Amino acid sequence: MYSLAELADQFGLEFTGEAATELTGIATLAEAGPGDLAFLANSKYLPQLASTRAGAVILHPDLVARSPVACLVAESPYVAFARVSRLFDRSPPATTGVHPSAVVSAEADIHPDACVGPHAVVEAGASLAAGVVLGAGVYIGHDSHLGAGTRVLPHAVIYHDVWVGEQCVIHAQAVLGADGFGFAPGPDGWEKVCQLGGVRLGNRVEIGACTTVDRGTLGHTVIGDGVIIDNLVQVGHNCRIGKNTAIAGCTGLAGSTIIGAECTLAGGVGIVGHVEICDNVHVTGMTMVTKSITRPGSYSSGTPMTCTRDWKRNAVRFSQLDSMHQRLAAMEGRAKQSDKG
Amino acid sequence: MYSLAELADQFGLEFTGEAATELTGIATLAEAGPGDLAFLANSKYLPQLASTRAGAVILHPDLVARSPVACLVAESPYVAFARVSRLFDRSPPATTGVHPSAVVSAEADIHPDACVGPHAVVEAGASLAAGVVLGAGVYIGHDSHLGAGTRVLPHAVIYHDVWVGEQCVIHAQAVLGADGFGFAPGPDGWEKVCQLGGVRLGNRVEIGACTTVDRGTLGHTVIGDGVIIDNLVQVGHNCRIGKNTAIAGCTGLAGSTIIGAECTLAGGVGIVGHVEICDNVHVTGMTMVTKSITRPGSYSSGTPMTCTRDWKRNAVRFSQLDSMHQRLAAMEGRAKQSDKG
Amino acid sequence: MYSLAELADQFGLEFTGEAATELTGIATLAEAGPGDLAFLANSKYLPQLASTRAGAVILHPDLVARSPVACLVAESPYVAFARVSRLFDRSPPATTGVHPSAVVSAEADIHPDACVGPHAVVEAGASLAAGVVLGAGVYIGHDSHLGAGTRVLPHAVIYHDVWVGEQCVIHAQAVLGADGFGFAPGPDGWEKVCQLGGVRLGNRVEIGACTTVDRGTLGHTVIGDGVIIDNLVQVGHNCRIGKNTAIAGCTGLAGSTIIGAECTLAGGVGIVGHVEICDNVHVTGMTMVTKSITRPGSYSSGTPMTCTRDWKRNAVRFSQLDSMHQRLAAMEGRAKQSDKG
Repeated sequence: MYSLAELADQFGLEFTGEAATELTGIATLAEAGPGDLAFLANSKYLPQLASTRAGAVILHPDLVARSPVACLVAESPYVAFARVSRLFDRSPPATTGVHPSAVVSAEADIHPDACVGPHAVVEAGASLAAGVVLGAGVYIGHDSHLGAGTRVLPHAVIYHDVWVGEQCVIHAQAVLGADGFGFAPGPDGWEKVCQLGGVRLGNRVEIGACTTVDRGTLGHTVIGDGVIIDNLVQVGHNCRIGKNTAIAGCTGLAGSTIIGAECTLAGGVGIVGHVEICDNVHVTGMTMVTKSITRPGSYSSGTPMTCTRDWKRNAVRFSQLDSMHQRLAAMEGRAKQSDKG
Repeated sequence: MYSLAELADQFGLEFTGEAATELTGIATLAEAGPGDLAFLANSKYLPQLASTRAGAVILHPDLVARSPVACLVAESPYVAFARVSRLFDRSPPATTGVHPSAVVSAEADIHPDACVGPHAVVEAGASLAAGVVLGAGVYIGHDSHLGAGTRVLPHAVIYHDVWVGEQCVIHAQAVLGADGFGFAPGPDGWEKVCQLGGVRLGNRVEIGACTTVDRGTLGHTVIGDGVIIDNLVQVGHNCRIGKNTAIAGCTGLAGSTIIGAECTLAGGVGIVGHVEICDNVHVTGMTMVTKSITRPGSYSSGTPMTCTRDWKRNAVRFSQLDSMHQRLAAMEGRAKQSDKG
Repeated sequence: MYSLAELADQFGLEFTGEAATELTGIATLAEAGPGDLAFLANSKYLPQLASTRAGAVILHPDLVARSPVACLVAESPYVAFARVSRLFDRSPPATTGVHPSAVVSAEADIHPDACVGPHAVVEAGASLAAGVVLGAGVYIGHDSHLGAGTRVLPHAVIYHDVWVGEQCVIHAQAVLGADGFGFAPGPDGWEKVCQLGGVRLGNRVEIGACTTVDRGTLGHTVIGDGVIIDNLVQVGHNCRIGKNTAIAGCTGLAGSTIIGAECTLAGGVGIVGHVEICDNVHVTGMTMVTKSITRPGSYSSGTPMTCTRDWKRNAVRFSQLDSMHQRLAAMEGRAKQSDKG
């Protein structure tokens, strides 16, 4: 339980209303009760402010006058909400120490503060720094290193020669360091190219559930500091992703894609291999990126959803677009001629 | 082994042909032999009926006269096939009891009838109702509950505070309750928003292999009774999916998507966040849903496949569509003018 | 360490330069040092040849004259590189024997040469041939068979009745044999169709991380010899994939898709169910395949990426394509009339 004044003090915010207001939880504007803190960060939800029953609301200074309840005033209400949310985190604490069912190599280097969950496996040459937490069934391959404070959730698999920085979160079933998709077309079928590189993750990287980051062929696949990646994302071999870039779910990066810093890729984006995307690029959902992007900005592809009957008609015409273009040009030519004539 | 008359009796169907016909297996029209039951539910396969060697066929009353062999007559042959298929299921039986290699908290509540496979982990506060089966290596987090008869296949991971109803099936590597993709853009990079909600699944829900259902930020992610979800599907935080909706593979739902009841989403669909889809909506494969849908019906987007050479020509013209439209309008204007002149 | 002459001899290649040149590693043209072997297989990297510091380069006979360093001369430099790469593979060796923490049924048939990693589970009736390696936590279901030399990486799950050929590689978190997505629309919701078939993989198949191959409904899902499949790919029930076909990441095949031999599907492709694709078909990234393909060649769909502002304008016009087509036809009709008049 926190008082409004305590929260304001702890997060360096101003407040309005009763300093002693007690807040025991955090909830949406619509669902919050008198003991809850709510927040308003998206103007879409502004209409809910007037009728909120929250004990207090985190909001922007411009909206204080419109709040029926106490306020925590923040220039960036969403960032303030993110910070306050940590106080109310109900995640269960990690068990401490190395669980007796874990299989840890005598040649692994486990910091005394690190936790290793049941049935986890840590191979020779691997190291876990202070505060590392491995969930149940996590696998850490040979010579892989996890930096201080990094948490790996149940059943994530980290192959050999994968270095993860500090304060990272690797979610369940994620796979770091599987072989890149490298095969040469030989006379009797595909010949595998051994994937000799590793994976290097910076600090404060988050990797979603069932996301795969392949190891490099020669040299490493590299993910920069502060990169956040959602679930079911594929990062091909030798990709390089710059600092603070965010990648939403179901996106796929083919091999050797280079992405700059501070980019955002929405969900379902696909990027062909060997292209380069500069800093500060934003790609909308399901866009097919087939060439390099050299200027910051927002990029898109795809066609809008309509009812299936209309879509079918228009989709047929797509196959005739080039011929339509030529017919149009021919008409324009005739018109020009008749003008002259 | 079943006689034709037994099957008819058990499933409440009429039959034609010899009551004592013995059926020991189930197979397609094309591959069935004299001891097999086949079925005809899709008119595409009608041509195979005349030459089938099956012992008997499940089919619609209108087709009985065209069958060369005995029939089980059903208004809905596919539903009848679904029910009969259970008799021939060869899935291995679950092992019974708690395997000695499993790690089960003393503070978990395990029904005496529940089965816990080798290397499974059940945390404190979790409960398994009667008839629950956990496969090898399954992880059940703190305070998560599984209803009666629910089966969890090997290595699925269920985080803390996830409630699963009765008679559900959770396939291998599925992840329920990983953190939603919530981050606020702070001055020094992304700041994580703690994901404080849980996941709530109704009864008779099926979740495919490697499918991920994220926990809610505030409040829960909710999946209704009878929902079926295929493999490699992403369900973002705070999504709500209505009763009996079906979602095919590789589909992604961004956070806070609300989907009604009795909908079908085909494979590879992408839905942007914060939209609402009403009941009885059908979305065709790979459609990009960028806005709410308020009327039942079928919706689509995308362009049709052609040979790459033609596609390239038409795709270039797509980038000129707006200018083509303006040129067309200009031509129409000129024509109107000259009509008047 | 290898001398240039040794490598040439071992792989049946010619060489230029000093026979005794010592090579201790393998690296890209740009990053190689005097002790490294590099390769040039993609003309995109030809400009890097002149300045390479590599000890030797694998390249095509036509380029030998342009190399500043020693050469290994190969008609197919990429295939030669693939073969040489095996010499430099740093993958850790498999542990030998059956790890004491593994749970292996007394009714499983384990070749004395096979390795079973920690916490792996092998059920009754399963068999592992000579040289099979199961990583940590791998699950092998009842009556499943793995051919000689097949490797299964940590935590992959293989259900019952799945046969895998020889020399296959199954990456972490892959799932072979989960239930196909088969449900009949009954009066009270979806009724599950039991998935009675299995999965059959040929020899030298590679399955990527988090890829799912569903079991057949009746009959098997079949993957031919030499097929390579990347990460996060969905293969539906009763698909059949021909010899040496390659499928890149994030692609989805709906049920009963039949794909010929020697095909390539790029990343993010979607294929609707019940279609057939002939041999030697190549499908570009993110293509939506909605019908059968009966002629070899390259196929595509989708629209090109542009900046979001331009895209929005053109995407709106897509919804007007059929009406544009009609307006164009009307203009052409008028023009024809006025020609006659």
